[in-house]
Amino acid sequence: VDRAVAEALDGADALASFRDRFPIPDGGPIYLDGNSLGRPSYAVQEALGAGLLDWERHLVGGWRRWIDLPVQVGDRLGGLIGAATGQVLVCDSTTVNLYKLADAALAHQADRTVIVGDANDFPTDRYVLAGLAQARGRHLRLLPSHPVTGLDLDDLAAAVDRHTALVCLSHVNYRSAARLDLAAVTDLAHDCGALVLWDLSHSAGAVPVELDAVGADLAVGCTYKYLNAGPGAPGYLYVRRGLAGELHQPIQGWFGQQDQFAMGPGYQPAAGVARFLTGTPPILGLLAVQAAVELLGEAGVDRLWAKSQGLTRLLVELVRQRLEPVGATLASPADPDSRGGHVSIAHPRAWPWCAALIERGLVVADFRTPDVMRLGPAPVYTRFVDVYDAVERIAEVVAADRDGSLPKPDRSRVT
Amino acid sequence: VDRAVAEALDGADALASFRDRFPIPDGGPIYLDGNSLGRPSYAVQEALGAGLLDWERHLVGGWRRWIDLPVQVGDRLGGLIGAATGQVLVCDSTTVNLYKLADAALAHQADRTVIVGDANDFPTDRYVLAGLAQARGRHLRLLPSHPVTGLDLDDLAAAVDRHTALVCLSHVNYRSAARLDLAAVTDLAHDCGALVLWDLSHSAGAVPVELDAVGADLAVGCTYKYLNAGPGAPGYLYVRRGLAGELHQPIQGWFGQQDQFAMGPGYQPAAGVARFLTGTPPILGLLAVQAAVELLGEAGVDRLWAKSQGLTRLLVELVRQRLEPVGATLASPADPDSRGGHVSIAHPRAWPWCAALIERGLVVADFRTPDVMRLGPAPVYTRFVDVYDAVERIAEVVAADRDGSLPKPDRSRVT
Repeated sequence: VDRAVAEALDGADALASFRDRFPIPDGGPIYLDGNSLGRPSYAVQEALGAGLLDWERHLVGGWRRWIDLPVQVGDRLGGLIGAATGQVLVCDSTTVNLYKLADAALAHQADRTVIVGDANDFPTDRYVLAGLAQARGRHLRLLPSHPVTGLDLDDLAAAVDRHTALVCLSHVNYRSAARLDLAAVTDLAHDCGALVLWDLSHSAGAVPVELDAVGADLAVGCTYKYLNAGPGAPGYLYVRRGLAGELHQPIQGWFGQQDQFAMGPGYQPAAGVARFLTGTPPILGLLAVQAAVELLGEAGVDRLWAKSQGLTRLLVELVRQRLEPVGATLASPADPDSRGGHVSIAHPRAWPWCAALIERGLVVADFRTPDVMRLGPAPVYTRFVDVYDAVERIAEVVAADRDGSLPKPDRSRVT
Repeated sequence: VDRAVAEALDGADALASFRDRFPIPDGGPIYLDGNSLGRPSYAVQEALGAGLLDWERHLVGGWRRWIDLPVQVGDRLGGLIGAATGQVLVCDSTTVNLYKLADAALAHQADRTVIVGDANDFPTDRYVLAGLAQARGRHLRLLPSHPVTGLDLDDLAAAVDRHTALVCLSHVNYRSAARLDLAAVTDLAHDCGALVLWDLSHSAGAVPVELDAVGADLAVGCTYKYLNAGPGAPGYLYVRRGLAGELHQPIQGWFGQQDQFAMGPGYQPAAGVARFLTGTPPILGLLAVQAAVELLGEAGVDRLWAKSQGLTRLLVELVRQRLEPVGATLASPADPDSRGGHVSIAHPRAWPWCAALIERGLVVADFRTPDVMRLGPAPVYTRFVDVYDAVERIAEVVAADRDGSLPKPDRSRVT
């Protein structure tokens, strides 16, 4: 594979023009960390500017337009995760949403004692579940998945039974990008009467998710990775239609109240998913999510996924060609059908490499302790030549490292 | 009292120049709803613009500056509520923060069965407490406070005893502005071994709060009222130093973890108040709070309070002079020592009046069902002549109403 291959792929890229929707300076580092924090689009910048002006001009009157944003933006976001309207809210953080949904699921499954998760799942997911298991007298069973290929479905099948209240898993693993079969896992959980809660943080915006089609019960995710809504932009949650009315929201806030401005004496949950709202929603964040999701909707889930697969396929080939010979190993599934939108490599020197790539303004990649470099080519703004050039630059830094010319890096602080 | 009195008060106003820090067009409606949604300052607008640019330019690298913002901005905000550093976080919404702190307090007071609150407190406070009481097998005792003068301390004293786990109250009532004695209530709760949790949403930024001095245990509040940080900007929470380490945070998120980026197998809470962080914090919202709090810090708590008292004193006099004769009654404490930063009036026609004042571009005030008009002159940008002119305009609309010339208003949507 040489650069001409990448150039040809760019020439045939149906999403090529979407790169122009983002301010990207020429000559800067190649950004392969869109799976940690996505780039701002002009649309998001304009939406935030318009929101600021709306606040300045209309002050409290702005609430006439703002009050339903969590539901309205949720409906739009639903289009990216296979959810029909009335099932998705944009609100709170992923962590808080996970807590609300998992707690509601446990209360719903009162006679079942076990939560099943993945020992290699993202920390906040494991921590939230551990806290809930302890507080609600349940047992959290974290399955020892493979660090590269992820959770084995046979292991999962052996672990779920009539005691399982909830199966809570990430669709795509934050570290390896190992991707679970959404339908198979959902069926497996349902076959034994368990509810299933998906974390879509590393899927939505790059990887197709068909929540309604597979009959998923619950899902959460963040909007600051592939969705490009900004650092700490609000998270989202999904509750299957029909299930929402049966669930009890633990954080009984005034935005989840049936008739909010009656301000009545007792809490009466809103009819559907809206009961999972809590406090006053972050309006500027919601406007950013709205603009970000509209842009990705234009690009289209199918085209984003096709491009994402093309980018990671090229990346894996280049890793094999340029980085495996110098001792790096692929730390993501080799099979594209089992992979999400990023590619990880492992090497004991991954951290000095990452740090040098950033310091030298070459490539922004993500380090995950102790030895993993994550490369996340967001499909909406990353070119195939970016992937090609990034691997060349990584190879240069690896060569410099072998010559002993890399300085000792500072401690990492990346998310 | 005539307009010359108001003009003289403006002439002597030590904070007069702060109005220029906010974009306020000439000839617009008089804004007396800063206790619902404060105005944006130029500083907040610039901070948000700078944050957007920081995201665009530095992408994930921005986290080096952003990661400690919840603690750093919390420390700054602490200056407005009498809290030394290391006890305040800016994070999540007021509702979620109230839930976290109340749940932690209940777990800490495992052998006590009762939560004491105010039946006339803001809905989200009552709903959160009701949900927790039910879920944790406790009893919520909501005391029937007076709708104008608020909770009677003798009633509170009679209600708390060795069974009381938590006393949770608003410092200033959202509706009447009745202000509780922070020290007296805190002592009363402590004398029987209860913890006390204050909602400061209607205090901070106008009314002085001395959390450390009175020995308060816990507090929450919002930043979009007198703090002017924008619609749905993040809330804050306070945990007394020494108490934080004893409390268990129910929502075990990765930002509350001791060594966040070790991403280790088990949750180990951060040492102090930081354990009450949950998910990825909203960075643009935090930057807005930072700028907003710095501006109020410049104005100074003492000067803000002196001006706030001056404004509400004038307002009460004008209500007596112009609105009581047409049948409106003061729905806030007449005694300034028992009042917060706003003044409410009651009349069966309050809603048509509010709607007409907004529709005619005269005054933006807040309606609270069924018959209350709230007038909140935020001290940092409201002039004494604004208060004078606003009451004149209200009187005009009342006169029009008596002539039968007010149209039937639409349904209200205000917060």
